Amino acid sequence: MPDLAAVLAGIVPADRSAMAAARARQATLTKPLGSLGLLEDVSVRLAGIFGTHRPDPRGAAVIVAGADHGVARDGVSKYPSEVTAAMIGAFVAETEFGPGGAAVNALARTLGVRVYVADLGVAADVAPHPGLTDLKIRRGTRNLRVEAAMTRDETLRAIEAGIRLADRAVDDGADLVVPGELGIGNTTAAAAMTARLLGLPAAAATGRGTGVDDEGLARKTAVIEEALRRTDATSPLDVLTELGGYEIAAMTGMFLATAARRRGAVVDGYVEGAAALVAVGIAPHVRDYLLPAGRCAEAGHGAQLDRLGLRPLFDLDLRLGEGTGGVLAIPLLLAAAAALREMRTFAEAGVPDA
Amino acid sequence: MPDLAAVLAGIVPADRSAMAAARARQATLTKPLGSLGLLEDVSVRLAGIFGTHRPDPRGAAVIVAGADHGVARDGVSKYPSEVTAAMIGAFVAETEFGPGGAAVNALARTLGVRVYVADLGVAADVAPHPGLTDLKIRRGTRNLRVEAAMTRDETLRAIEAGIRLADRAVDDGADLVVPGELGIGNTTAAAAMTARLLGLPAAAATGRGTGVDDEGLARKTAVIEEALRRTDATSPLDVLTELGGYEIAAMTGMFLATAARRRGAVVDGYVEGAAALVAVGIAPHVRDYLLPAGRCAEAGHGAQLDRLGLRPLFDLDLRLGEGTGGVLAIPLLLAAAAALREMRTFAEAGVPDA
Repeated sequence: MPDLAAVLAGIVPADRSAMAAARARQATLTKPLGSLGLLEDVSVRLAGIFGTHRPDPRGAAVIVAGADHGVARDGVSKYPSEVTAAMIGAFVAETEFGPGGAAVNALARTLGVRVYVADLGVAADVAPHPGLTDLKIRRGTRNLRVEAAMTRDETLRAIEAGIRLADRAVDDGADLVVPGELGIGNTTAAAAMTARLLGLPAAAATGRGTGVDDEGLARKTAVIEEALRRTDATSPLDVLTELGGYEIAAMTGMFLATAARRRGAVVDGYVEGAAALVAVGIAPHVRDYLLPAGRCAEAGHGAQLDRLGLRPLFDLDLRLGEGTGGVLAIPLLLAAAAALREMRTFAEAGVPDA
Repeated sequence: MPDLAAVLAGIVPADRSAMAAARARQATLTKPLGSLGLLEDVSVRLAGIFGTHRPDPRGAAVIVAGADHGVARDGVSKYPSEVTAAMIGAFVAETEFGPGGAAVNALARTLGVRVYVADLGVAADVAPHPGLTDLKIRRGTRNLRVEAAMTRDETLRAIEAGIRLADRAVDDGADLVVPGELGIGNTTAAAAMTARLLGLPAAAATGRGTGVDDEGLARKTAVIEEALRRTDATSPLDVLTELGGYEIAAMTGMFLATAARRRGAVVDGYVEGAAALVAVGIAPHVRDYLLPAGRCAEAGHGAQLDRLGLRPLFDLDLRLGEGTGGVLAIPLLLAAAAALREMRTFAEAGVPDA
């Protein structure tokens, strides 16, 4: 069992001197200063994470944690909980193109990103499969509208499961880790957590998830309001326990472990953002190891990114989850590092500067 | 010499039935409909280009055309014309990482995009190099403020040079082609062309290029106003001849040839957008073969994209040129195709649909 305390003790600030050297180097490269825009900011962040002004991140992995949510019984999603187990199967099924026929598999295969899949708390029995790690804590959370979604012990076990998953991905060669998720009902949990952690009214944190209609959105918002009245939890771990879920806690563990291993962790979407808020609440230096992906359509995502200090790289109207946005960010992050690492300076290239 | 008339005759509409089949297939894949956002729209476009509802584009290439502009003498850029020749050298120079030490080289190397470099009209002598194609028409254009930038014959020769370059890239295996450019002063030409082709006032089409200050921007706008008063050209070829440049005409040729070869052409930035406007003006079906990259900071870029029917995929504040934005779009375009091609349907995966 990984030791959470040891992981927390291992999270140190990013390398400020490497970041300063990276910023200075950006000013000497053969391009107008600032003309690579956000890629320059990202490259400085990567320099801090990897402790060098010429960062060279190699492997990338997405870890998809699946779990169910008791609150799904309240009709907060367009899809029934049965979809979670079926999609876990789809993530590992053999296809003519390789393992996995879901969106994250297709994107990751094409972009050279390794996929890990884990069952943290799917409500149904999931057939064992070599591509699936069984870390099931319980068959779905309790209904967060009426009681704590998890026990404190379950929360810690799920966080530690996430630490184990991220550690394995890093051991296998991932320098960039994308925590990803699947769980019918989990944007409700993420919205409740985000509302409480950022002090937002429920409506400002609640979106359509995979696509509920107006009536569904009103029901979802009312459920979240009731949950927020039920509990006065404010500490990150208590909020996670009361309003979160097994896959969200696991992603919190992934953010913590990735930072402790001094690798980059990509913040994909709204559910991932809620997990990252908890990780940063527990260990503020985790912020230094976070990397942006896209803007997502959920209300409250912008507020999450502001708190996390991230500016999104793209705006593709994604609302799928699975870590898909994080996977799409990987080539942009690698490109940002490559420009900083491989471009020649004006002096080296003999090009007159402005 | 490639025959422009033959190229124009070869440009046919994209495959509408493949597009319809792609749209129908998107609705059956294991994800909420529309949840891959812009990637779904792009995948349908790729289906039309490649004539199959499961497109599988393979190689990608960026073709950087360099040339100088007589108008640079009017102080419209932060950089002197000498930079163009020096940067051409930087694109082909040997470095410890491989050929080329400029931004486009670093990005393309990391993302698996092949780089071609051509001299269409650099004002200085450029040392011969195996990595550089010499297609020089003239040592820089005439000053578009006071006279036609090119002769009609030069324009046609530059277009044909671009056709040859794109043909070679496609012959070498590129299914996705990124026309790219380098040329001190060329955002002035692009702004003048865009203002005339879209009927915009000069100020609405003029931006800071690689970064002129307020005074430089005012000077640049005045130069463009004078050029627009000088010529009443309105046909795409006349506008290109009067206000364009050798690398812009070459990119127009690349857009035409890529469409004629039924491959995808990525529209990178503002100068590329001006070339694409001319190509679409000459052969409207070219629109079907265009693919989006990022939003760029230049005033008037949004108007270009509206006319071209493209919605940008990302917003990274790039203002570098060289085809860098188009190179960054390649993995996103490949991912869009992969999702459409490789994802399983709800029925295949045994997942309950909503």
